Amino acid sequence: MTAANVDELLKNPVSFLDDSGPDDDIAISSRIRLARNLQKFPFPEAASAEVMQEVCEIVSAAACNSSSLGGENMLVFYPDQMNALDREILLERRLASRDFIRKPETRRLFVCPDESCSLMVNEEDQLRLQTIRPGSQLREVWKSIDAIDNDIGRHLQYAFDEQLGFLTSCPTNVGTGMRASVMLHLPGLVLTGQIAPTIQGINKLRLAVRGIFGEGSDNWGNLFQISNQNTLGESETKIIDELDSVIHQLIMQEKNARRTLLENNRYAILDHVGRSYGLLRHSYKLGFEEAMQSLSGLRIGVDMGLFSSIDIHKVNELFIKIGPAHLRKSHEGEYPDDALDIFRAALCRDTLRQLA
Amino acid sequence: MTAANVDELLKNPVSFLDDSGPDDDIAISSRIRLARNLQKFPFPEAASAEVMQEVCEIVSAAACNSSSLGGENMLVFYPDQMNALDREILLERRLASRDFIRKPETRRLFVCPDESCSLMVNEEDQLRLQTIRPGSQLREVWKSIDAIDNDIGRHLQYAFDEQLGFLTSCPTNVGTGMRASVMLHLPGLVLTGQIAPTIQGINKLRLAVRGIFGEGSDNWGNLFQISNQNTLGESETKIIDELDSVIHQLIMQEKNARRTLLENNRYAILDHVGRSYGLLRHSYKLGFEEAMQSLSGLRIGVDMGLFSSIDIHKVNELFIKIGPAHLRKSHEGEYPDDALDIFRAALCRDTLRQLA
Repeated sequence: MTAANVDELLKNPVSFLDDSGPDDDIAISSRIRLARNLQKFPFPEAASAEVMQEVCEIVSAAACNSSSLGGENMLVFYPDQMNALDREILLERRLASRDFIRKPETRRLFVCPDESCSLMVNEEDQLRLQTIRPGSQLREVWKSIDAIDNDIGRHLQYAFDEQLGFLTSCPTNVGTGMRASVMLHLPGLVLTGQIAPTIQGINKLRLAVRGIFGEGSDNWGNLFQISNQNTLGESETKIIDELDSVIHQLIMQEKNARRTLLENNRYAILDHVGRSYGLLRHSYKLGFEEAMQSLSGLRIGVDMGLFSSIDIHKVNELFIKIGPAHLRKSHEGEYPDDALDIFRAALCRDTLRQLA
Repeated sequence: MTAANVDELLKNPVSFLDDSGPDDDIAISSRIRLARNLQKFPFPEAASAEVMQEVCEIVSAAACNSSSLGGENMLVFYPDQMNALDREILLERRLASRDFIRKPETRRLFVCPDESCSLMVNEEDQLRLQTIRPGSQLREVWKSIDAIDNDIGRHLQYAFDEQLGFLTSCPTNVGTGMRASVMLHLPGLVLTGQIAPTIQGINKLRLAVRGIFGEGSDNWGNLFQISNQNTLGESETKIIDELDSVIHQLIMQEKNARRTLLENNRYAILDHVGRSYGLLRHSYKLGFEEAMQSLSGLRIGVDMGLFSSIDIHKVNELFIKIGPAHLRKSHEGEYPDDALDIFRAALCRDTLRQLA
């Protein structure tokens, strides 16, 4: 199979950020990933390079024989043949995990052309299948990934236990092997000081709250990933229904918070939005975190109808494009690290000028 | 004489900020004030209300009989007949001192129509005559105020000692009774870290460095008032020549600093200017200090030619118009203190939108 190049990804907008989805004024994207392993092969952590290579080939054959990952147009990435920067691009586009790109040998990545679906081979588990869509639509994402899983699974013999369910490398994934998450933009709850008790409440429901780049990342840009913790003893649909209901509750809470802010503290919120826009539109050096926070402020303004000419999906896309790897990729040559802040500011200025 | 109303001042731009003057990319304004007292009358601090009233009338007659304060068009303010807000307007426009407006009884203020010249009666001294002009032009200001002083002095008998010179309430003014100052905008020296040693050097020359609102005020907006300390034993022209030469040196240093910044740290200075403009153009709540700092940043940008449509004198004027009293004056009614931040932001937004 011909190796794909990340340039092919960079030509197109990120579909899950560019398209419209339900409640996408608050819900950026919905994502489900499934962990799967093959019978008779040790998990990647315990496997030799030869075994991992064999697994790569077996999964490749299955992926190629399934139409659900894009068929002929499916993109195949060989991480060990890519440079570190290109691998970082995969991470920033949420197609691969940090662990996956850190140890690129005997790994493979399949991506369908619109990036809505991808499959990592030999990450923590032999297969890590992911589907991601704009807005809050976990049930639709589940239907989609379930079909893809069945499609690919026809060609593979998954490690499956009648009692436990799917077997995985880490016990926290055993059972469904599923992690479902929704990325929410919650500046209203942050600005009204409701976020801390809200997160405490969510944690009590066996749900996890993480930042945009997964575990351990900060809530830059007031972005929060809410995901299920449990994988054992419950069906996928039940887990998704429960998570989905929490997500809808959070969306309502965020809407209320924004309304309250506008009613009781109109100028504070206008000021927050205005300063964010002013920074994105006029600064010449912009750090990653500051840019994320400003994009967050701008998103509220777009939602409030203050920027009629700005499409909120273009703002979503900027969250990806301001990433260090994306910036480096679009600026060849050698330069000091703080040049990225200059590139980032220029990208934001130019994008907003074009949208204005 | 009919009492003037501050509304008459507010109708017109502040002439010393609105007009062009030499080196006004860096020197905002040049100002000289003369302290004078009358023979045979105790200084205001030791005088009874009756004596102070008598001095008011004597000086009034002299002012009216001189053409140099505007003649028929001269504005006369009776501070004790004005409310506190209107008196604050006089302070923010630099026509009166804080001491003067704090104790309004038996005081009087004469102002020529373009505000370039004014005369406080019964401040620390019986007469405090001031002339102020745009840019760096101390010698011209001296010629002007010297002529006015002679014109008014023809009708008065000044307290004068052949040995000491003019007698004043405070010994630090005895001699010439003159304080000359230039308001400089020195963001380049601040940003390059040269300002502290520069101020130390100036202090050694028996010159004082103060903030925009005189003694004790901070250097908000990177504005610095440089003035002479000595009044005794030297002629006015010698003092002015010495001060003027220091001012010209500072202007050269500031120009060099800006050039250095642009050459070595172009993006840092662009960023400083851009953020300042973004804040003024898009925020909805703007504190006084933050507004001063942002106007300072914008001034550099105008000087650098980044904002071809913005007249630097309009920016200078904003330094006055964003003052609390000026904002209160243009917004009638009762409101909480932080409403001023909202008015200030609106004024800056609207002004820059109109100039854009």
